[in-house]
Amino acid sequence: MAYELFYWPSIQGRGELVRLVLEEAGVDYVDVARRPGSEGGGVAAMMKFLNGDAPGFLPFAPPFLKDGDLVLAQTANIMAYVAERHALATDDEASRVFLHQLVLTVMDFLAEVHDTHHPIASGLYYDDQKPEAARRTALFLQERVPKFFNYFERVLTRSSTGFASASGFTYADLALMQTLAGMRYAFPNAMARIAASYPLLGELATRVAERPRVAAYLASERRLPFNSSGLFRHYPELDP
Amino acid sequence: MAYELFYWPSIQGRGELVRLVLEEAGVDYVDVARRPGSEGGGVAAMMKFLNGDAPGFLPFAPPFLKDGDLVLAQTANIMAYVAERHALATDDEASRVFLHQLVLTVMDFLAEVHDTHHPIASGLYYDDQKPEAARRTALFLQERVPKFFNYFERVLTRSSTGFASASGFTYADLALMQTLAGMRYAFPNAMARIAASYPLLGELATRVAERPRVAAYLASERRLPFNSSGLFRHYPELDP
Repeated sequence: MAYELFYWPSIQGRGELVRLVLEEAGVDYVDVARRPGSEGGGVAAMMKFLNGDAPGFLPFAPPFLKDGDLVLAQTANIMAYVAERHALATDDEASRVFLHQLVLTVMDFLAEVHDTHHPIASGLYYDDQKPEAARRTALFLQERVPKFFNYFERVLTRSSTGFASASGFTYADLALMQTLAGMRYAFPNAMARIAASYPLLGELATRVAERPRVAAYLASERRLPFNSSGLFRHYPELDP
Repeated sequence: MAYELFYWPSIQGRGELVRLVLEEAGVDYVDVARRPGSEGGGVAAMMKFLNGDAPGFLPFAPPFLKDGDLVLAQTANIMAYVAERHALATDDEASRVFLHQLVLTVMDFLAEVHDTHHPIASGLYYDDQKPEAARRTALFLQERVPKFFNYFERVLTRSSTGFASASGFTYADLALMQTLAGMRYAFPNAMARIAASYPLLGELATRVAERPRVAAYLASERRLPFNSSGLFRHYPELDP
């Protein structure tokens, strides 16, 4: 039975990390909210779970995944679940928990990316929090990006495989690739200035994007473009 | 061999969730940074790992745990690891991944709690971001607390055991108890106003705090008090 992914239909957002794992795994899945309402899709199908009108475990927010009767939420949790079933993780426990903590660290970084344009409240528009966004973003680029990127670069230095794990490619590399792609979209100027400081991260992103299944996905209509409603947003005033 | 926990020695913070799981598990552990430097403790012992001067996997930030040669980071990841080894989780996979997503949702909430007093940057003092903190906190109490607390209450309604899991007490309940304790410390007025809306959550917190090992821990010197350097902070101006 195909996996059913539930996520907002018009943005990459956190759901994109799940889409990438499903695509690289080469498994059948339905991106439910992007299907027509007449075929049981649309946002309404997703809300049924969030409202508690569907059986099984209750997700807090999209993305969530349905695998038969199992409903599971939280991006990093879903990624690990799918990856471990389809040979995109590692077999030994030590590196399994390491990969999970690495992806959770990526998720922490993504939350900080989101808050660059929404430092006061996710319920307000960007236009309602522009001065605060400018202040937060400047410090994010100055302090937080180097802290996280240095960490990722050191992980890659230590693994010495060109991937996060010493055993080679895993789903954690998909998370790193997507993070770099998003940052390049949102902050092209800042990223151009610092690219040379993180050569292994840059090479990893290229290498992952060239994997046949990933490349086919990125070139397909299934890959939504980055836009100004998603997690990574390009506001020129935030990227001087 | 005793677990070694690495976390900031003077705050509860995210590390408190790990301490609670270790205490409820009744296992031997060393809270390394709280030990004297002369005995190999202190913050310096923690920094060795963060600086990459220790072997094994590289943690991004505290808390992290050492179990023999294994080094693991990210609070929810550590909690699951310890809980699954000491009968504080569940055996079937469906509820295992559900508990993990629930604790990850608690972690998301805690990140939002942190940003009420640090909406612009964790590298700045609260005094340098007070107007933004006031604005963020008002919306946090108005929109985000009900969203998360309603979710937790619905989880408890659905499980109907008085705990998050339909199988009874698990480590996820420790995370919920600590969250409620922290919110009551940080926002006593706001919490008093809404307590009646979340009766199951309130009862769970009481029930968990009365468990013998938890109660003994909370009454001991090992339990650091809440304070104004931690994740939960009481600033009267943010809790009118």
